[in-house]
Amino acid sequence: MSKTFDKLQPYLEKSMAFQTARSLFEWDDQTTAPFEAADYTAKVVGILADEYMKCLINDDVRKLLKKLQEDKEQEDLTDTEKAIVKELAKTYEQLESIPPEEYRAYNELAPVANRKWIKSKKDNKYEDFAPYLKKIIDMKKKFAGYRAKGVKDPYDVLLGDFDECFMMSDLDPFFEKIKSEIIPLLKTVGAKAETIDKSYNFLNYDIDKQKEFCKFLSGYVGFDFNKGVIAESAHPFTMQLHNHDVRITDRYMEDNLESAMFSIIHESGHAIYEMNVDDSLTQTLVGGGASMGMHESQSRFYENIIGRSKEFWEPLYDKLVKLYPDNLSTISLEHFIKGINKAAPSFIRTEADELSYCLHIIIRYEIEKMIFHDEVSIEELPKVWNQKYQEYLGITPTDDTVGILQDTHWSWGEFGYFPSYAVGTAVASQIYACMKEKMPLEEYLKEGNLIPIREFLRDSIHKYGATKNTNEFLQDVCGEKFNPDYYVNYLKEKYTKLYEL
Amino acid sequence: MSKTFDKLQPYLEKSMAFQTARSLFEWDDQTTAPFEAADYTAKVVGILADEYMKCLINDDVRKLLKKLQEDKEQEDLTDTEKAIVKELAKTYEQLESIPPEEYRAYNELAPVANRKWIKSKKDNKYEDFAPYLKKIIDMKKKFAGYRAKGVKDPYDVLLGDFDECFMMSDLDPFFEKIKSEIIPLLKTVGAKAETIDKSYNFLNYDIDKQKEFCKFLSGYVGFDFNKGVIAESAHPFTMQLHNHDVRITDRYMEDNLESAMFSIIHESGHAIYEMNVDDSLTQTLVGGGASMGMHESQSRFYENIIGRSKEFWEPLYDKLVKLYPDNLSTISLEHFIKGINKAAPSFIRTEADELSYCLHIIIRYEIEKMIFHDEVSIEELPKVWNQKYQEYLGITPTDDTVGILQDTHWSWGEFGYFPSYAVGTAVASQIYACMKEKMPLEEYLKEGNLIPIREFLRDSIHKYGATKNTNEFLQDVCGEKFNPDYYVNYLKEKYTKLYEL
Repeated sequence: MSKTFDKLQPYLEKSMAFQTARSLFEWDDQTTAPFEAADYTAKVVGILADEYMKCLINDDVRKLLKKLQEDKEQEDLTDTEKAIVKELAKTYEQLESIPPEEYRAYNELAPVANRKWIKSKKDNKYEDFAPYLKKIIDMKKKFAGYRAKGVKDPYDVLLGDFDECFMMSDLDPFFEKIKSEIIPLLKTVGAKAETIDKSYNFLNYDIDKQKEFCKFLSGYVGFDFNKGVIAESAHPFTMQLHNHDVRITDRYMEDNLESAMFSIIHESGHAIYEMNVDDSLTQTLVGGGASMGMHESQSRFYENIIGRSKEFWEPLYDKLVKLYPDNLSTISLEHFIKGINKAAPSFIRTEADELSYCLHIIIRYEIEKMIFHDEVSIEELPKVWNQKYQEYLGITPTDDTVGILQDTHWSWGEFGYFPSYAVGTAVASQIYACMKEKMPLEEYLKEGNLIPIREFLRDSIHKYGATKNTNEFLQDVCGEKFNPDYYVNYLKEKYTKLYEL
Repeated sequence: MSKTFDKLQPYLEKSMAFQTARSLFEWDDQTTAPFEAADYTAKVVGILADEYMKCLINDDVRKLLKKLQEDKEQEDLTDTEKAIVKELAKTYEQLESIPPEEYRAYNELAPVANRKWIKSKKDNKYEDFAPYLKKIIDMKKKFAGYRAKGVKDPYDVLLGDFDECFMMSDLDPFFEKIKSEIIPLLKTVGAKAETIDKSYNFLNYDIDKQKEFCKFLSGYVGFDFNKGVIAESAHPFTMQLHNHDVRITDRYMEDNLESAMFSIIHESGHAIYEMNVDDSLTQTLVGGGASMGMHESQSRFYENIIGRSKEFWEPLYDKLVKLYPDNLSTISLEHFIKGINKAAPSFIRTEADELSYCLHIIIRYEIEKMIFHDEVSIEELPKVWNQKYQEYLGITPTDDTVGILQDTHWSWGEFGYFPSYAVGTAVASQIYACMKEKMPLEEYLKEGNLIPIREFLRDSIHKYGATKNTNEFLQDVCGEKFNPDYYVNYLKEKYTKLYEL
């Protein structure tokens, strides 16, 4: 028992309460709050953010942290406490160099910028969002600059916030490998995929029935409705207050069957992770997922690796056909599986197939690098965006709504976040490879029995929360650090088989 | 400009932020949160409550408050600032004598007790809720005892929290008058009302259509959807974060047309009040309604005085008939008006007619007096409850779910709250009497033009927030303090005319 750590507890608990309140406000803002609430509520959230910071960043905590980092003190700490101290040190690094009034101003700005983004996306007016994006970027640059201390690259600082294992020096070769292997594969697959008639997906699908089926799917993969709720928002997301309150959203389109279904499986993957974090860790600094990359590995494992497999749909497809007999009774399971895996260049990341998905991420990554290396102005962003889509995917967005304005993350200042999607996808492939060696995974899916899969992930990953990093997890679960070969092999194998290349 | 007041501002703003966060958690708990979230979330809310208290109750604020209460300082204050200082002094009185750890424990207990109430009401098991009710009552007694300081009656302390103008010495004669005048009237009316066939109200009413019509009604009376949202909960309520974010809930029953309609008009009345508070007052200590009594006066003015009048329904009834032609096409407007004003003893307060309504309140008031004067045990409450229903209303609840367990308020520790419902009803009648002298109110209703009504209430009451108390408002608007005669006369006139007595 560490007396020093005990002294730290009240500060940690209080800051967690403020953080949880902020999460609830964010959830509420995205799902419920009336339109005109934003400005007044932003003040409240600003104060909570301010208090969160004051509660963690102060002389008392600083002294306790310093003491706890000493070798002698470390001996008295449990593994969880050590992880919390490490996480606190990270938070200190993130926050300490930012003046509190700037941090507060930023937290007041973000929800306003988000509102502007919603409207400007709706109106297809990038110029309305641009001044707010500029403010957000300027502040993020400033913050990253403070933290870089002239030593690190500011963009690496931001990348590190989402996954400490993936800096530019890790991502650059990873992404170059993807570009060299996947762009040609996409071309071959794309040519063959063109022959797949996917028009069934864009017929009229009653939204109430979609909601009902999505709710079913969510429960089917393991979302626990006693510990979670589903709502609607412009962009699907997952938000946890703690491991007994994990919320996901979905978005439903009458003329698109797949969109809501795969979003809900994706978000359920995130939610299952958070719900399975051990009770002893929840509401601590290591009470959430290990990193954005690990989180995405779980959501994309459920969405793509499991969710787009034939085995997954074998026990389910009849149910879906029964819900929409007019649209689907002539579509065989085999046809449906080819449809949900149809690979074709498209504008919207969240609607992209597995094969082209990473190219969306790479585009965002390369533009973010340009932004943080001052190689592009805010005004030029739509142009650069469209050029890169033409270059990598062979298509040019028809407008900014489906182009640079498509995603919510920049409006919240989440830069350095997107690469996690690609890392997660690759990590998922690596975990999948080792799971297949340990269990009859495909048989379980065919039987509609997802429990052993969920239990394996819970016991080897989820329950540990953020007490390990991505590479430590991969080492422990798969006996090997991050290796992107699994990902490239997974895609090659899957599409070779599916398209009989 | 008062420098002393300026020094107070940061404390007030911070406490408001904590308070607003607590409101959001309460809203969320009632409308959204998953079932198992309660225990973990309670800790977070407990910490926020604790911080709220620490932020208001401390030596710095105490000194500033004392100074601001001096005559010399008062001269420098605006009217709003004076009202805020007065309200702060009230908050001081309420909180200062309660040890912070007890206050925190109470705030942690309340949401748990509420969950237990929900379940125990569902299961009709008072005994499951009783231990939590006991804990809540014991803590409330202790708190009221601290504050009474041996001088006041503890129940008066609690009454004062909801309306400083109504102590037992005001309420006892008011309620005696009601009992002597209304119980006989209810008997006469009840006998005649029996002949009104209201079976149409209990046919099958599609819930989606109810929601649609209730939303329409809410907007019709003046709820602004840019500043508010409607959700569902077990018991309808209103909750504001600030004047640009005011939320109401409703509850829909397939076999009851009236219930959801009049609840939504009621809650819209509360919401219109909060939405109309001046921008300069919102998010201050005087930024909400003046008192529970004033609040209820507005909700019940909209629900009953306007909402159950023939003039209100003249431009609306056809729309309702068109929505449910099978059920309503044979029911004339006159029949419908008699139906929505049918007076008959019933178990549930929220479903009660205007005439018997106050008797529900009087029963609750008399039982609360007994509780806080140690004249009844927790175990005996259902028995006492049922006896009083038999005595005043001539009926005995069939079980505890429709009896002592019907309302949520006790589970939140809201004792002393119920009399406000009766006070509000009486205040509404008094305001109605003076409004009729000032505007062609009935003509406005017939024209479907509720704007002048809303503007009158906004300009004479709502915009002032809590800068005046109930009697001050009545004096300013009607030229007379609280006078229950208006209420008795209103009921007598209305029912004499309606039932041709």
